[in-house]
Amino acid sequence: MLSLPSTPPPKSKILVFGAGNFGSCLADHLGNSDHEVFMWSREARFVEYFNKHQRNPDYLKDHEFSTNIRVVGPEIPSKEMMKQMDVLLFAIPTQGVRETLIKLQHSFDRAHLPLMIFVNKGIETGTQALTLEIIADTCGSEIARAATFISGPSFAKEIVRRQPTSVSVASLTESQAKKASEIFHQPWFRCYTGSDPIGLELAGALKNVYAIATGLADGLGFENNTRAGLITRGLAEMTRIGTAYGASPLTFLGLAGVGDLFLTCSSPTSRNYTVGYRLGKGEPLEDIIKTLGSVAEGVTTVKGLKKIIDEMQVSAPLANGIYALLYEGKDLHEGIQELMCRPPSRELDLPEKAGEPAKRLMQKLGLDT
Amino acid sequence: MLSLPSTPPPKSKILVFGAGNFGSCLADHLGNSDHEVFMWSREARFVEYFNKHQRNPDYLKDHEFSTNIRVVGPEIPSKEMMKQMDVLLFAIPTQGVRETLIKLQHSFDRAHLPLMIFVNKGIETGTQALTLEIIADTCGSEIARAATFISGPSFAKEIVRRQPTSVSVASLTESQAKKASEIFHQPWFRCYTGSDPIGLELAGALKNVYAIATGLADGLGFENNTRAGLITRGLAEMTRIGTAYGASPLTFLGLAGVGDLFLTCSSPTSRNYTVGYRLGKGEPLEDIIKTLGSVAEGVTTVKGLKKIIDEMQVSAPLANGIYALLYEGKDLHEGIQELMCRPPSRELDLPEKAGEPAKRLMQKLGLDT
Repeated sequence: MLSLPSTPPPKSKILVFGAGNFGSCLADHLGNSDHEVFMWSREARFVEYFNKHQRNPDYLKDHEFSTNIRVVGPEIPSKEMMKQMDVLLFAIPTQGVRETLIKLQHSFDRAHLPLMIFVNKGIETGTQALTLEIIADTCGSEIARAATFISGPSFAKEIVRRQPTSVSVASLTESQAKKASEIFHQPWFRCYTGSDPIGLELAGALKNVYAIATGLADGLGFENNTRAGLITRGLAEMTRIGTAYGASPLTFLGLAGVGDLFLTCSSPTSRNYTVGYRLGKGEPLEDIIKTLGSVAEGVTTVKGLKKIIDEMQVSAPLANGIYALLYEGKDLHEGIQELMCRPPSRELDLPEKAGEPAKRLMQKLGLDT
Repeated sequence: MLSLPSTPPPKSKILVFGAGNFGSCLADHLGNSDHEVFMWSREARFVEYFNKHQRNPDYLKDHEFSTNIRVVGPEIPSKEMMKQMDVLLFAIPTQGVRETLIKLQHSFDRAHLPLMIFVNKGIETGTQALTLEIIADTCGSEIARAATFISGPSFAKEIVRRQPTSVSVASLTESQAKKASEIFHQPWFRCYTGSDPIGLELAGALKNVYAIATGLADGLGFENNTRAGLITRGLAEMTRIGTAYGASPLTFLGLAGVGDLFLTCSSPTSRNYTVGYRLGKGEPLEDIIKTLGSVAEGVTTVKGLKKIIDEMQVSAPLANGIYALLYEGKDLHEGIQELMCRPPSRELDLPEKAGEPAKRLMQKLGLDT
């Protein structure tokens, strides 16, 4: 049996994997909360620059980071260093989690496992795996059961300025979620705990697809009624997909669901919203992707989502519409007309049978229900 | 036993009570859908002006209304006229519903009852009654059980321009909700049906209180994370109050819940949002009310809500905070600090015992559970 970490002391040693926009803002928050923070970067240039200037050369450039942060790397942290840590925080893109955990898993001290926190969002391309499943595949089911996940409406540039921010913290082992909450919670960074990491992960990934849809409607010149209706119907669709998968519908009412959806759909700086907006203005997808400078996650997520939807045979007209528009050459105006002409229906027709994908995942985690 | 109306014919005779902003926009929508629409006004001036110009002298002044609308009044419609109607649509303020129904109820042909649709939002001042209860009190439980309610993100000025709009339609008799949906549904006015009118009514009333809170945060200069977090925590609080009352938590995920909340919180033209915004900028409430020109419903709703919250002993820090700010002279900055310093908690702690207020209402409706 794996021994779960005891409540981390008021001052914890935290190792952050990933020194990007979100990873470094969380490191800053934790440093400001008097934790001892180590942030790993695989770039020697970054390690040197940050430790000299206490600034991130690539993101949040105007911000002077907490002096409680030291950057380590570019070599992957040693077993000895990992052993000293109370908390491991993973702030790397979903597509890199499997590779990183494969490298790290031999360094875990399984008798004194640190608290593990994941803040990435998205579905693994090809496998359609959630991060919970990637953890189980690479580190085993016991570590996956104790892993915690944080998600919610949280722009990094606002967090470093202590703008009041609220997030969801979920784990299959709710006591672990509570511990992660204790590490992060401050009056200006409020943590709300829950026990549905599958719903939290799905909400974080799927919202990007519905942000594209909302941007599209705005780009086409539709107004407030349409926007509010579309966000709500997107939320109903996310909830239906999530419930069919095996998540709790109420998770989608929370910060990782409606909160993050609202933030992403309301922000002209969101990449996914921008892709939709420019599509609505008539630009071809390839031109948008070329000039956007960074990948909009919704564009890739909808591919994996399409497979999930088809496997579960769940009704998802909005996600199917976005997929057809992006990958099947569907005419935009024809697609909208089809959506608008769908017959009236019940508002929240949630699937009745328990979700098969979550059942399979629970079996993998040794939590057969 | 009351005989429910048969499916209204494709072309229905509809009598609209209330010729205000929302009533007249719905009359226009129904007229454009080829129904024969009669709109009642108690002002002789209005009757004459509208029927001469096919325009509303007070609202949506630029709009030329459907020629399928005839305004009747100023006398209350006769029993003979009411008898010919397939649908009665009530678009009058909540505070006037009881008085209107008392006047009308002797004119109902109970053997051939028309479909009754209510679109008002709010709680009756003093009694804290929902419209469902007002109908039961004045017309009897059978009529209340068959009544239908429409709510959702729907600015009148966008509806008359056929901006795609989506609404929830609910009734304790779901077949009646389906009939109301058939009357209203068009590609640009999509109806989604449900069976929780209590949740739909509570959501429509309560959202105005949370719109004040969101305006307040914006007025104080908080940014996107705070706004999205506050809307989501407001939604969680609405859902908790609604569930304690006896509504379904999932209703708050729908168009009457999150949809209307988004619209109200995102629109600088919303009266409730404006009250909050100006409070956040430091203006005293009485000055705001004096210059606002019309009543912001949230300001009165929070009074009734406070009684409901206290009776049910449900946790509602945001609504309590708004009440204390508006009516107990609470200092704004102190109130915010108290909210931010609340201890971390579980995200969606819904009450476990079934709602007492809804139970009492169901007993009144002859639907003891």
